[in-house]
Amino acid sequence: MGDNITPPVSKLAAATINDAASSSLVLKHPFSDRVPIQSIVSRPDGGAGLAGQRVRVGGWVKTGREQGKGAFAFLEVNDGSCPANLQVIVDAAVADLGTLVYTGTCVSVEGVLKLPPDGTKQKIELRVEQVLHVGPTDPVKYPIPKTKLTLEFLRDHIHLRPRTNTIAAIARIRNALAFATHSFFQEHGFLYIHTPIITTSDCEGAGEMFQVTTLISESEKLEKELRENPPPSEADIEAAKLAVKEKGEVVALLKSAKASKEEVSASVAEYNKAKENLSRVEERSKLKLGLAQKDGKADYALDFFARQAFLTVSGQLQVETYACAVSSVYTFGPTFRAEHSHTSRHLAEFWMVEPEIAFADLKDDMNCAEAYVKYMCQWLLDKCLDDMELMAKLYDRSCIDRLRMVASTLFERISYTEAVQLLEEAVRKGKRFENKVEWGIDLASEHERYLTEDIFKRPVIVYNYPKGIKAFYMRLNDDSKTVAAMDILVPKVGELIGGSQREERLDFIKQRIGEMGLPIEPYEWYLDLRRFGTVKHCGFGLGFERMILFATGIDNIRDVIPFPRYPGRADL
Amino acid sequence: MGDNITPPVSKLAAATINDAASSSLVLKHPFSDRVPIQSIVSRPDGGAGLAGQRVRVGGWVKTGREQGKGAFAFLEVNDGSCPANLQVIVDAAVADLGTLVYTGTCVSVEGVLKLPPDGTKQKIELRVEQVLHVGPTDPVKYPIPKTKLTLEFLRDHIHLRPRTNTIAAIARIRNALAFATHSFFQEHGFLYIHTPIITTSDCEGAGEMFQVTTLISESEKLEKELRENPPPSEADIEAAKLAVKEKGEVVALLKSAKASKEEVSASVAEYNKAKENLSRVEERSKLKLGLAQKDGKADYALDFFARQAFLTVSGQLQVETYACAVSSVYTFGPTFRAEHSHTSRHLAEFWMVEPEIAFADLKDDMNCAEAYVKYMCQWLLDKCLDDMELMAKLYDRSCIDRLRMVASTLFERISYTEAVQLLEEAVRKGKRFENKVEWGIDLASEHERYLTEDIFKRPVIVYNYPKGIKAFYMRLNDDSKTVAAMDILVPKVGELIGGSQREERLDFIKQRIGEMGLPIEPYEWYLDLRRFGTVKHCGFGLGFERMILFATGIDNIRDVIPFPRYPGRADL
Repeated sequence: MGDNITPPVSKLAAATINDAASSSLVLKHPFSDRVPIQSIVSRPDGGAGLAGQRVRVGGWVKTGREQGKGAFAFLEVNDGSCPANLQVIVDAAVADLGTLVYTGTCVSVEGVLKLPPDGTKQKIELRVEQVLHVGPTDPVKYPIPKTKLTLEFLRDHIHLRPRTNTIAAIARIRNALAFATHSFFQEHGFLYIHTPIITTSDCEGAGEMFQVTTLISESEKLEKELRENPPPSEADIEAAKLAVKEKGEVVALLKSAKASKEEVSASVAEYNKAKENLSRVEERSKLKLGLAQKDGKADYALDFFARQAFLTVSGQLQVETYACAVSSVYTFGPTFRAEHSHTSRHLAEFWMVEPEIAFADLKDDMNCAEAYVKYMCQWLLDKCLDDMELMAKLYDRSCIDRLRMVASTLFERISYTEAVQLLEEAVRKGKRFENKVEWGIDLASEHERYLTEDIFKRPVIVYNYPKGIKAFYMRLNDDSKTVAAMDILVPKVGELIGGSQREERLDFIKQRIGEMGLPIEPYEWYLDLRRFGTVKHCGFGLGFERMILFATGIDNIRDVIPFPRYPGRADL
Repeated sequence: MGDNITPPVSKLAAATINDAASSSLVLKHPFSDRVPIQSIVSRPDGGAGLAGQRVRVGGWVKTGREQGKGAFAFLEVNDGSCPANLQVIVDAAVADLGTLVYTGTCVSVEGVLKLPPDGTKQKIELRVEQVLHVGPTDPVKYPIPKTKLTLEFLRDHIHLRPRTNTIAAIARIRNALAFATHSFFQEHGFLYIHTPIITTSDCEGAGEMFQVTTLISESEKLEKELRENPPPSEADIEAAKLAVKEKGEVVALLKSAKASKEEVSASVAEYNKAKENLSRVEERSKLKLGLAQKDGKADYALDFFARQAFLTVSGQLQVETYACAVSSVYTFGPTFRAEHSHTSRHLAEFWMVEPEIAFADLKDDMNCAEAYVKYMCQWLLDKCLDDMELMAKLYDRSCIDRLRMVASTLFERISYTEAVQLLEEAVRKGKRFENKVEWGIDLASEHERYLTEDIFKRPVIVYNYPKGIKAFYMRLNDDSKTVAAMDILVPKVGELIGGSQREERLDFIKQRIGEMGLPIEPYEWYLDLRRFGTVKHCGFGLGFERMILFATGIDNIRDVIPFPRYPGRADL
């Protein structure tokens, strides 16, 4: 930020609540009068160096207990800024301790940081002098008590589950990975492009898309309107017709009787009014209940976008329009699948990261994907180690080692053909798979995990897949059998990334569209990118929730997104 | 990044295409063999210091011309990394110049950077020694020729418009503002939370939401199925019933005839098969064309989420669940309105930034919003000045001054009551507004712009609005007439931000919901945040496209989002 232009707002805001005269080391939140607990307990000295400081903190009581026969209370307070709590001690003289000690109570307190007695776990504690606010909790009714709760149970209390250690830690890890994503691509000169959520390109030709429409609500609105104000009957229409006829006769009569100009124009006005009324009545009589239809199908010409619209399944095709203009781009946004999958690995709404690079081939694509995954792993080790330690303690003892391994190990790169040979060799040596291993068939999850977890014990990039199992836009290799596709397989989750070099040759891509039985017309805009100034380019997609599963070791994808959507459920 | 753990992938990737022995100053793209043009022409010396360097660049020809009777060609090449082009000179001996010179042609070339003759505009130019790739363009068919095109025209060629200077510059500005947004909130300790896109909370109680459904596609699937495989007729059902009766009689007959066990069980099996067939036939006969209905309304129990679902209009209510657990959070995602607005200020799909801060009041909210807007303005001045200069030249001469003014000027803060008094005073002095000025009525856009553009000539924060014109969740002030709401008004666009302190008191918010005639049940989860550990908190929303309009001076919101969606249009 320029020195001479920016006003020192953030610096001013960072002043402490101590008066300016007293020296202070701990900074208050820029837009709140509290000090984030992280800035006390996450210091290398655990906060000990801040003893004697006066601070104001706010947070929620994790556990509380009265001691000394009700003379004082110990509260473990957490404000979400880090996994650690601050120990807060309140005297009975300062506040009614009974309302403070329940799990889930919100407190805002001011006091002085003190060194605790020797032999206690904490390095610092807060002696409260003033309780500024209490948001009480009825322990009988609070749905998220102190006892250990399953992640499954928490899914039924989605609005309160961020108050638990696990979901809060996942939120911090998710936040870190999102910012790592932006930082990585920005550092490397990529532009963030917002691809559309609502799309009219049904590009996978699949029925698994959600439809976006106003047709149903329009028909419900109409139904309500017609209920309150019934449509005209045949008799109403006849009456309106009669009125037109009569008013017309009056006009004719007055004209032939050479009536005054005023009289004639008044009668003409009445006649016109009757005609307008008739057309209104006739229009209303045509209104029909139910979805607007044409030729027995929903009439999308009447839908909001004047055609059928869907929620996007990928921003790739659209972001290619920017790659073929400004070279290095990425998307990071929500994508959707209307699949009735009830597994722990599928969501109806999930986030994807999709970079796209011009003047780059499959090798560049692999280099970019490998560097990006390593960058995210290192970022978590650098910035979220305390949260990762919580994950290691509660869910997956190996998760930190896994991050270290991935951040520091070259990814293995093998062709699909080599991968199949290795798997066939394993089968010959006695390994049993549920799914068949054979050149030309897609690798199953068990195969992918065997390659990365058992054979190589590190991330594996498999490239050059048979064209029959891959999308039309992937570049045909010179062998005419395989395409320049690549998948990155990692321990714990299997496929983390799928990408390819895109077919930039107009003739080839047209032929592939034809071979796959797809219509050409919806892709004309996509073909234009090849018709005019075509360029070698490539890209990949990373399922963001998969990355969080990989990092944390959490098993169910519904627990790593704040508001999971799946068949039958879309709470809030 | 930790030194000992991260492999130097990014450093390796940053090597130049020169051999390691030769010293070099210009870095190639990390995941492409080209050098971004920005790293040549955007140096303070305009690239002059790189003379003698061998580089490979790629990009699209903006303008090209043959010279010296076809002996060589001048190409202005742009790769999207910056608004400036690189001048590229190709000899007729090196390539067929005829295919290179057309606007929109893609080229990848290698050569040596040279100082141009004195008196030319460029500080550096590239003498090509090898043309590596040409993506040709037929100038007769290319829809985006060199001539000046209107933004309106470009909206009909949405897949090619990023190749224009204006749309590419807007993409870089939009990218910069998005990363500035993340940087600002991350620097200040906020967690990025992904609020849901599909929601079942119809929280504004409004009909202007898009519906997300699989009901229509399910009914269309069924229709297709019934067309291919017509439903059973009455006769089919009777036949199936008859078969059951007959098979039953056979069983009875065999039993009474004491037939062998094998014979009896074979007949029972046939009988059961007939019964199964009957129930299948009866089931199919009940299938009805059209939307699944119950009691004359769409049967949402059969929809994907087992209830009616919509596209979100705001993530605020949902993100409050995280603010009331981890304190400082923000969302940045797409939001939707199914309004039939054909104005230059409305989109059906647009992006919003919505921070939410616990332990903070309206003043903190204003401080945060002001600091955020200033930060974005300064970011553009620091990182996008070349693109801003293009905007100033082509669209709004004052846009850079406006950024400087906003970044450096304290925002005026006045109450709604004061604002109304000022406007009434202006009316008394002869100012005419189309809309009435009166305490209790919302300010119209003309009033907002008069306050910020004419009276104060700087951004204005108006706070404490009458409760009757604001949402139920805004905190009631002690006067019982106003709520702790605030809007930020800026020159050029009027309202840029709307925010409020949230009502954290259970009794008050319940009463407000009742007063506004809203049902309480859908808000029970929201009320739980007040029931259990309630906390003072506040937040605001910034319309991201409005911010881009404000920054660039572009008039139509459809030009500042890559893929605009509005009534009747959702291209790609």
